[in-house]
Amino acid sequence: MESDILIQNGKAVLGGSVLEAWIAIDQGKFTAIGMSAEMPKARKVIDAKGNYVLPGVIDEHVHIMDMEMSAFENFTTGTSAAAAGGVTTVCEMPLGMPPVISRKVFDEKRALAEKKALVDFALWGGAVPGNLPEIPDMVKAGAIGFKAMMTGSVPGVFETLDDGLLLDFFRRVAECGSIATVHAENDAIIKNLESRMKSEGRNDIHAFLESRPVVQEVEAISRAAMLAQEARCSLHIVHVSCPQGVDLIAKRKAEGQNISCESGPQYLAFSFEDAKRLGPYLKFAPPVRSKAETEQLWRQLAEGKIDTLGSDHGPHTKESKEKGWTNIWEAGNGALGLETFLPVMLSEGVNRGRISIQKLVSVMCENPARRFGIYPQKGTLQVGSDADLVIVDLKKEYVVDAGQFHSIHKHSPFEGRKLKGAPVLTMVRGEVIAEKGEIIGKPGYGRFVRPSTLSL
Amino acid sequence: MESDILIQNGKAVLGGSVLEAWIAIDQGKFTAIGMSAEMPKARKVIDAKGNYVLPGVIDEHVHIMDMEMSAFENFTTGTSAAAAGGVTTVCEMPLGMPPVISRKVFDEKRALAEKKALVDFALWGGAVPGNLPEIPDMVKAGAIGFKAMMTGSVPGVFETLDDGLLLDFFRRVAECGSIATVHAENDAIIKNLESRMKSEGRNDIHAFLESRPVVQEVEAISRAAMLAQEARCSLHIVHVSCPQGVDLIAKRKAEGQNISCESGPQYLAFSFEDAKRLGPYLKFAPPVRSKAETEQLWRQLAEGKIDTLGSDHGPHTKESKEKGWTNIWEAGNGALGLETFLPVMLSEGVNRGRISIQKLVSVMCENPARRFGIYPQKGTLQVGSDADLVIVDLKKEYVVDAGQFHSIHKHSPFEGRKLKGAPVLTMVRGEVIAEKGEIIGKPGYGRFVRPSTLSL
Amino acid sequence: MESDILIQNGKAVLGGSVLEAWIAIDQGKFTAIGMSAEMPKARKVIDAKGNYVLPGVIDEHVHIMDMEMSAFENFTTGTSAAAAGGVTTVCEMPLGMPPVISRKVFDEKRALAEKKALVDFALWGGAVPGNLPEIPDMVKAGAIGFKAMMTGSVPGVFETLDDGLLLDFFRRVAECGSIATVHAENDAIIKNLESRMKSEGRNDIHAFLESRPVVQEVEAISRAAMLAQEARCSLHIVHVSCPQGVDLIAKRKAEGQNISCESGPQYLAFSFEDAKRLGPYLKFAPPVRSKAETEQLWRQLAEGKIDTLGSDHGPHTKESKEKGWTNIWEAGNGALGLETFLPVMLSEGVNRGRISIQKLVSVMCENPARRFGIYPQKGTLQVGSDADLVIVDLKKEYVVDAGQFHSIHKHSPFEGRKLKGAPVLTMVRGEVIAEKGEIIGKPGYGRFVRPSTLSL
Amino acid sequence: MESDILIQNGKAVLGGSVLEAWIAIDQGKFTAIGMSAEMPKARKVIDAKGNYVLPGVIDEHVHIMDMEMSAFENFTTGTSAAAAGGVTTVCEMPLGMPPVISRKVFDEKRALAEKKALVDFALWGGAVPGNLPEIPDMVKAGAIGFKAMMTGSVPGVFETLDDGLLLDFFRRVAECGSIATVHAENDAIIKNLESRMKSEGRNDIHAFLESRPVVQEVEAISRAAMLAQEARCSLHIVHVSCPQGVDLIAKRKAEGQNISCESGPQYLAFSFEDAKRLGPYLKFAPPVRSKAETEQLWRQLAEGKIDTLGSDHGPHTKESKEKGWTNIWEAGNGALGLETFLPVMLSEGVNRGRISIQKLVSVMCENPARRFGIYPQKGTLQVGSDADLVIVDLKKEYVVDAGQFHSIHKHSPFEGRKLKGAPVLTMVRGEVIAEKGEIIGKPGYGRFVRPSTLSL
Repeated sequence: MESDILIQNGKAVLGGSVLEAWIAIDQGKFTAIGMSAEMPKARKVIDAKGNYVLPGVIDEHVHIMDMEMSAFENFTTGTSAAAAGGVTTVCEMPLGMPPVISRKVFDEKRALAEKKALVDFALWGGAVPGNLPEIPDMVKAGAIGFKAMMTGSVPGVFETLDDGLLLDFFRRVAECGSIATVHAENDAIIKNLESRMKSEGRNDIHAFLESRPVVQEVEAISRAAMLAQEARCSLHIVHVSCPQGVDLIAKRKAEGQNISCESGPQYLAFSFEDAKRLGPYLKFAPPVRSKAETEQLWRQLAEGKIDTLGSDHGPHTKESKEKGWTNIWEAGNGALGLETFLPVMLSEGVNRGRISIQKLVSVMCENPARRFGIYPQKGTLQVGSDADLVIVDLKKEYVVDAGQFHSIHKHSPFEGRKLKGAPVLTMVRGEVIAEKGEIIGKPGYGRFVRPSTLSL
Repeated sequence: MESDILIQNGKAVLGGSVLEAWIAIDQGKFTAIGMSAEMPKARKVIDAKGNYVLPGVIDEHVHIMDMEMSAFENFTTGTSAAAAGGVTTVCEMPLGMPPVISRKVFDEKRALAEKKALVDFALWGGAVPGNLPEIPDMVKAGAIGFKAMMTGSVPGVFETLDDGLLLDFFRRVAECGSIATVHAENDAIIKNLESRMKSEGRNDIHAFLESRPVVQEVEAISRAAMLAQEARCSLHIVHVSCPQGVDLIAKRKAEGQNISCESGPQYLAFSFEDAKRLGPYLKFAPPVRSKAETEQLWRQLAEGKIDTLGSDHGPHTKESKEKGWTNIWEAGNGALGLETFLPVMLSEGVNRGRISIQKLVSVMCENPARRFGIYPQKGTLQVGSDADLVIVDLKKEYVVDAGQFHSIHKHSPFEGRKLKGAPVLTMVRGEVIAEKGEIIGKPGYGRFVRPSTLSL
Repeated sequence: MESDILIQNGKAVLGGSVLEAWIAIDQGKFTAIGMSAEMPKARKVIDAKGNYVLPGVIDEHVHIMDMEMSAFENFTTGTSAAAAGGVTTVCEMPLGMPPVISRKVFDEKRALAEKKALVDFALWGGAVPGNLPEIPDMVKAGAIGFKAMMTGSVPGVFETLDDGLLLDFFRRVAECGSIATVHAENDAIIKNLESRMKSEGRNDIHAFLESRPVVQEVEAISRAAMLAQEARCSLHIVHVSCPQGVDLIAKRKAEGQNISCESGPQYLAFSFEDAKRLGPYLKFAPPVRSKAETEQLWRQLAEGKIDTLGSDHGPHTKESKEKGWTNIWEAGNGALGLETFLPVMLSEGVNRGRISIQKLVSVMCENPARRFGIYPQKGTLQVGSDADLVIVDLKKEYVVDAGQFHSIHKHSPFEGRKLKGAPVLTMVRGEVIAEKGEIIGKPGYGRFVRPSTLSL
Repeated sequence: MESDILIQNGKAVLGGSVLEAWIAIDQGKFTAIGMSAEMPKARKVIDAKGNYVLPGVIDEHVHIMDMEMSAFENFTTGTSAAAAGGVTTVCEMPLGMPPVISRKVFDEKRALAEKKALVDFALWGGAVPGNLPEIPDMVKAGAIGFKAMMTGSVPGVFETLDDGLLLDFFRRVAECGSIATVHAENDAIIKNLESRMKSEGRNDIHAFLESRPVVQEVEAISRAAMLAQEARCSLHIVHVSCPQGVDLIAKRKAEGQNISCESGPQYLAFSFEDAKRLGPYLKFAPPVRSKAETEQLWRQLAEGKIDTLGSDHGPHTKESKEKGWTNIWEAGNGALGLETFLPVMLSEGVNRGRISIQKLVSVMCENPARRFGIYPQKGTLQVGSDADLVIVDLKKEYVVDAGQFHSIHKHSPFEGRKLKGAPVLTMVRGEVIAEKGEIIGKPGYGRFVRPSTLSL
């Protein structure tokens, strides 16, 4: 009758409330949530010391790469970063080398991650011209969803889908009851503007930002939404950077479409004003927007118009990024995000009063779990669920030092930013894998997670 | 380390999921929710036998009357009906004799109910011309919210508010951070039509139904919504009978207004087609609508456009109702509803596949608790919450027999209807008060419930 | 082959264009519109000297009163003011003594006006409790439409309709294919606020303004619109004072309702800022609004959201108005408007670039004629139409001097305002009735105008 | 003082009314519109015999081709067809050989047409990758507007614009104050579906129809609208075939965008049901839609949601069309439309009560003239305007016989259809050019028409 673990003295965020509850864990599951006197004894007691206990964070959008791109990031370094940052499940995007566009590579990547990951992981499947018939098999293999690119072709590796294939893609995904996502930007407009910038000798970060104006992102979102609706396919638009895009999605959702959207800390915490200072470290796509638009995103997050958050963790070498100071077009596209994902939201969101801690749990834990069919296994403090949790100290103040990152690379647009609020303990299925910034977990502990239910 | 009670082998509906969980109860609170092995021993074990365990139902809208109208219903009979029906908290409307329009009567009614009630209760305050300054005192006394009539004046007792007073009323309620509700029908249109019906010698139930067309209800809802918005007052429209009204409210909510709506089984389970058969037993206001409109209400309930349900339990003698066969205008206005409230929703809603059991819990337990500030004390199976619950057998089939009602009166529009799904055990704060239709609770056990938080 | 009259050298506003065209008139009708060389000779030539030639203005909303209230204004003085102001058709409201609420009074008022009017006139019928069966007869007698009051009861003379009667009223008007209008303000809210102001000893113009806030006007418009839609009745809301009301109407129109709205120069040219300076001369209802709202009205006028303009000419003695300086509640409610109606719109609208001259012709000539079924007899420079026109000099600058008014009374909120743009010649059915401010027409020349077509 | 011509006894459609007016014409202009007695004598009198007199029809959308494609159609045959059909101004599309994508070809095509045309003509400029800098020169040369293709590339001749170029195109056109149009269909979706059809061996007309579903057209319209709005460019969507597209455009217009749409008789008079019977004669793009959608288009036309009509006259040899019976993909894409344009609208629209004769004049005469800046020179019976008119006999019944066409080719999807309503006399600038189906005009009479005002 003894439990394995008892977490006491925490403020648990569950069911939309904050509750002083003790949590019992046995064999990797939450087995009881209760008040002190009623809780069975446990072999191990963790004292939360009045801190908040949240469900483990799900980062639905990471690029850990590994395989032939393990110099960028691998499952051990990437999930160490996750662990340090309070993330207990990562959803790995299919871009990489080789890309995850067949059952074979899907299974290989899964096997590799099972050997190397410290936290649990799910895998996205990819859709490229020619591989659409592979989708059902990847669904059976447990893909969390499927991603296609409307721009950002990696020639010969991960090419974009034109609108004809996009419609086919959505029909296939709908037939399997899975969910689609797209990188929604307008390829032709970007290429046109980028080429104009280059012909004008523009090599600075502002040239990059100007080559990807709001209109092209909103247009691509609108197009994807119309085609997904035609195909009756669940659609999740990742990394929406502008409030206009969020509004468009919210409006279609209100009209009954099965559609949702992700934004991320990079769009909430940065704006044009930071471009000069951060240069290539602000090169990711879609790009940051104006201050006014950023503030509007925060309001939309609070109002529930933004469904989920993702870090879009995109590893590049520091050298690759630094090149962008002289020529922005040569810098790698992406920013490390896993390790700052939760801390930034605690600091800029909860501690600055823009969102409640419950809202943070909604968009970083519950909503992604529900949207991708892994709820209630993940994303909630609930009896029977996996004992994934993160204890956070909302009062801790510190400065971001990318030198301490667990990623292979040590840089961040957040470098030097003063934050308040940090994870102090991360647990996956009953095992503490990180505590006070120290990694305790072991590679190979992380398990593959698959949708148990079809998304609505 | 022993609990008072352990409920085992149930399917608990919590956090939007259905979970096989055991529930420990101590000193009237849920003290642990867990899996079998982890649960502490208990002095008493209740075997749910695979049935569903729901939070106790909150009936936010009942007229128990009592005091000088105890011949209609009193807190003992009314809350016995509640207990038998799986309702663990009743919210008593302020109409009665004397009406609850002052702190003094509020406290008297509370004291009376504390002596007689078997289940917990909250009290609505009333707003009539002249008593608006009493509102702050009734808020302090613990009123769950405030009700005004736009039609349905009880002369000298509970008169309607005109639009000028209605706006004042909303401002007062907003200042106190409380919530307002209105009986929203257009007084002048009803009087005009009723008078025309009478002048034409129309005395049948159809005359009653025709005297209260959709347009007059929707107009009154629209008017109340506009005035409440001006006053920035939280508004809850009770007993919305038509989908047009629900849509209007949903639209305003989507535009940012703090507004919500209640409908009830009487509008979901009956339509014009039943009028001839049921005659005066279908006399309540607003009235039932067409079959097509009723079906639309079910869809709106499933889609989340209807926030809460209420029974609008309105006791009249059978004699009073029977008079309506010859002259509908002489019949009492209202229907007994407490005892069929949950059963009808289980049968017509869940068992006929129109709503999920989770949706039923949302609209009958969680949403009313949240909307009226008594969450998470009530309305949820959550550690620390009051141990109010109802175990329901979804497979039980039976026929409604009003002769078995615990209300003073023994009639119902549902008389003779075949239902499937019934409460088998009702518990309030850890005490079983009804089991298999038998009342076990004692008068005086029920406690007064007050909002612990201001509604959003 | 000679015409009676030829107007040459004018800029005619017709068909949405401005055209240098000569206009032939014979037997009171436009008989040809053409270029100089093609025009037949005429017995009389009028040289427009490059000025604009507009269709004669229709003032759809005037209170000339006469009959037992001839001390307020009579048809000779009122239509002299019209003639001086470029108005060739007045639509007389039914309030007065006796009110026009029966065929008998309708015919008497028509006969009286036929003896005294200098310009053409139409008559509104009135709707009060009890006279609804008179509506069909007044339609046959040629009523231009029907008016009811939602507030502003004149006890025993012209009482308001409650919502039940309002719905009946709309049904009656719809059955006759006529058009309804209402004074849309919320009676109960105004009474409540007015009474509060009085109890606080507030007697100033601001108290009057505060007693009629935007919300009560918008609510009344919304209510009237809902009931008219139920009755499928054409509805025209007169004297809309606030952009919120215009937007509500425009939205319903866009959704397919047969609804339109009138505003007037008094709401476009004045705002709260003028209250202190003008005191009781700004007492009319609905009242003026804020500067920002006024500017919004101008934009809505330019965008076509405001269908028509009316002067709401409301005559009171100067004594009656002056009383308002000490007690606003004792001042007469209304402002003289006929003589400044066109000049203010030329000056504040066209010459300040807020609207084009074509838009002015739309809202002061064509649209009222179309809406009330007297097009193309009135409201347009078109072959076969009545030769009603006004020649305006857009460059003329002058100061409003109410001492020169042709109304019985000599006061105006516009007193002392510098204007640019004035009528220089007014013609009704081929006869010049005013020229350069001088009245040439004779009482008894004006004819009764009736709808020739049903309004759409 | 004598006029050249007097048209008597006609019912003139002008200013939204139908009027019995006589019309004087001198030196190719309307010089007077009047009643019989007032009209000056004329050297020639045309008796309209009670028939309707409409402004000459403007066909804003024709492909006469000529130049190196004169075997398809040339300006003499094409404008003879126009004359016979009551069309007095044709707007020639820029596709052809060579395409009109430079000032040089523009001027050549103009010179050619000036020698050969019987009716007046305007020219569209074309936009293709690489020629955008030519736009300002073509504006100066008098282009009526500019067209780009989103699909339907003619390789090496008239290629489509991708979205990047489309946005550039809109910016260029906006800078010049001109107006843009696009063939709005989604290239990639069509190609994908067409290729699938071919791979399945589908060669029938239904395969063609299925390869261009509603979603791809609506998506392309939406995309063009978003990009034009970004560029603040006036946009006119030609040949909208589906009510969903019309609704999208109407919605954006209501929200303030400068956007409009054209549909045509081919979409109003045919639907899927006709496909089997007509085979390749129904091959044009976008394609016809379902019967229900067609009926909805008629309602939208009556409600004013469709701004203009165009015939999309597209000449192909009968041999080219006949090939489509065995292989639809080999048949020419387009249908002859000039000669049936007005007759079909008179018959199916006016005589079947779907639209009024005034609405027909709006969408076939006034609106195109206004939208393309040639009003009031064209499109209206107004003094000073070009004396272009068509007299129509609404009672004439006959059967379409393409053998009698004046086009080079003699086929039509309307072949054999019974119509009621026909043009009996067509006049351009005061000269009768067709009467009772006989061509009287001479090649070289037609003049070039250019926008005199910028579009709004």
